Amino acid sequence: MREDINITEVARKAGVSIATVSRVFNNNGPVKESTRKKIEQVIKETGYRPNILARELAEKKTHLIGVITHSILGEGLPNSIKGITHVIEEKGYNLLIGNTDGQIEKEQKHFEIFQSKRVEGVLFMTRHFTQEHRDVIEALPFPVVVLLQPTEDEKISYVAFDEYRFAQEATRYLLDKGHEDFVFIGGPETSANSLRREQGFKNALTSAGYSLDKERIIHEDYSIEAGYEATKRLVKEGVPFTAMIIANDGMAIGAINALQDSGYSIPRDVSIIGLDDTALAKASRPSLTAIHYSYQDLGKEGANLLLDKIESGNVDFSYKVLPYELKKRGSTEERY
Amino acid sequence: MREDINITEVARKAGVSIATVSRVFNNNGPVKESTRKKIEQVIKETGYRPNILARELAEKKTHLIGVITHSILGEGLPNSIKGITHVIEEKGYNLLIGNTDGQIEKEQKHFEIFQSKRVEGVLFMTRHFTQEHRDVIEALPFPVVVLLQPTEDEKISYVAFDEYRFAQEATRYLLDKGHEDFVFIGGPETSANSLRREQGFKNALTSAGYSLDKERIIHEDYSIEAGYEATKRLVKEGVPFTAMIIANDGMAIGAINALQDSGYSIPRDVSIIGLDDTALAKASRPSLTAIHYSYQDLGKEGANLLLDKIESGNVDFSYKVLPYELKKRGSTEERY
Repeated sequence: MREDINITEVARKAGVSIATVSRVFNNNGPVKESTRKKIEQVIKETGYRPNILARELAEKKTHLIGVITHSILGEGLPNSIKGITHVIEEKGYNLLIGNTDGQIEKEQKHFEIFQSKRVEGVLFMTRHFTQEHRDVIEALPFPVVVLLQPTEDEKISYVAFDEYRFAQEATRYLLDKGHEDFVFIGGPETSANSLRREQGFKNALTSAGYSLDKERIIHEDYSIEAGYEATKRLVKEGVPFTAMIIANDGMAIGAINALQDSGYSIPRDVSIIGLDDTALAKASRPSLTAIHYSYQDLGKEGANLLLDKIESGNVDFSYKVLPYELKKRGSTEERY
Repeated sequence: MREDINITEVARKAGVSIATVSRVFNNNGPVKESTRKKIEQVIKETGYRPNILARELAEKKTHLIGVITHSILGEGLPNSIKGITHVIEEKGYNLLIGNTDGQIEKEQKHFEIFQSKRVEGVLFMTRHFTQEHRDVIEALPFPVVVLLQPTEDEKISYVAFDEYRFAQEATRYLLDKGHEDFVFIGGPETSANSLRREQGFKNALTSAGYSLDKERIIHEDYSIEAGYEATKRLVKEGVPFTAMIIANDGMAIGAINALQDSGYSIPRDVSIIGLDDTALAKASRPSLTAIHYSYQDLGKEGANLLLDKIESGNVDFSYKVLPYELKKRGSTEERY
């Protein structure tokens, strides 16, 4: 490794003052052409780079954007981060990433670290958005845009999906096909996203005049295996059902496998809709009917909103709810 | 948003010198207890935070680690990044992430940006490692550890999987079961990882005395759909085969679907091994026999090696090749 050369040494080797070297670098103030050439020669020979950190410090610009996220696994969140990087790199910003594993202490720690790194703004992803988050964010000296969670607060801007409405629509689709006995498999009870999906599901049923037994709502951890085991249990316990709404595709694939392993035919005996539409949905046999929405767009819209706040100083509240679409496939349609 | 308060203002409000405020913050040098209390009071009232960036600048420590990667999608790379964050956050470092989409210009740009951000080291992931990379890395003023690619250079440390050997072992497993007609579906020809897998496959066959027709080696883009279409083509063209080695699980799932859609039974008619073992492998029907290895360990080992270089100044070349295991499942075993 090469030792870092500093400006003092460049000045000494060129036989000029530090101020002169600085003028050459920052292109401000007059410098004799022969002096400029001598300095440029020394810079070339020594591999000196101006201390950009110090310059940014003076300018109060770091061009750093922070992303705080509860996970970087799965298909959704990495796609949002990809959307974010595409937008911010194009504008000369760089990404700092903090992974919280969903722990509130780690979320707070990352906000502090990012503040000390002088990020110019943060995109914040979390499993549920609370009053504590509001208090932390409102005290920060930089703008924050929340992704995935409506902030229910006209101060903190957000970009999210309409999970309540799309779960409601998926349920209504199967109600309209004549189904009466439903099961909902959701994510963990700590996931606000999963709870919104559950509420949309419940609303569709109660609006249609059905009541819900408690065992028809199941909370699992989003994994293929959990979907498999939960469905096996339902079959074993003899719970009657012909329709399943499942909070993500992984658990839906698990449910399809469990039903097929138990001798059921899909969609003849049971119809299934996943609320996700990842690559798994099309690859499943039968293919999975699913609600489609774009995590990459979530990242892009969030990044655009944040950059607008950073660059134009816009502090107004704004939010965006992204579109979705029901993709009909073999798990609900006989002909597919 | 709150205006940033600076040290001058804190000193003025407390009626002391800047040097005194600085001594309180850095805990060096004597300060009268009553003065300390007065300063702490002002700090509390104004919400002043010491300029950590400036302090780090003086110390030449930024506690930033850069990750340059060709992708953040899929199951493997996000898991490595998760492994990296776990190791470095525990030691008080933060992650800067640069996404290159596999473009060489973007790789170079990220090395430059990270240098200007004064990262203390970089973990570098790329699809193929070239002389150009060596030249760039050797000129950098901080340590770099390459992940996924053996650097073939006793200067640049790396952590990787033994792809040649595990592809060879997967192929030998099916040779030992009596298979003679093989197909290999690899990733893009620009992926050094896929080429090493291909070479391991070829070596197993030629060592066993078989020759290879060119149409038996296919290059696709790692997607489920590409695996599906390639296998459909093989079936349509009447290429005879009873064994497939497939560079990732996604394409292997596509191949299973294509064969089943064409009326083949697996493993009765065709045996398949995926070189990946993601969550898909167990969820597939039949489940997929696959080579298992850990991307999270790749990230952890790489981060540990890099931190050792950063903290102990160790510049020696070192490398680590991680273990793997063949997981036997339904795509090769009748009983599963």
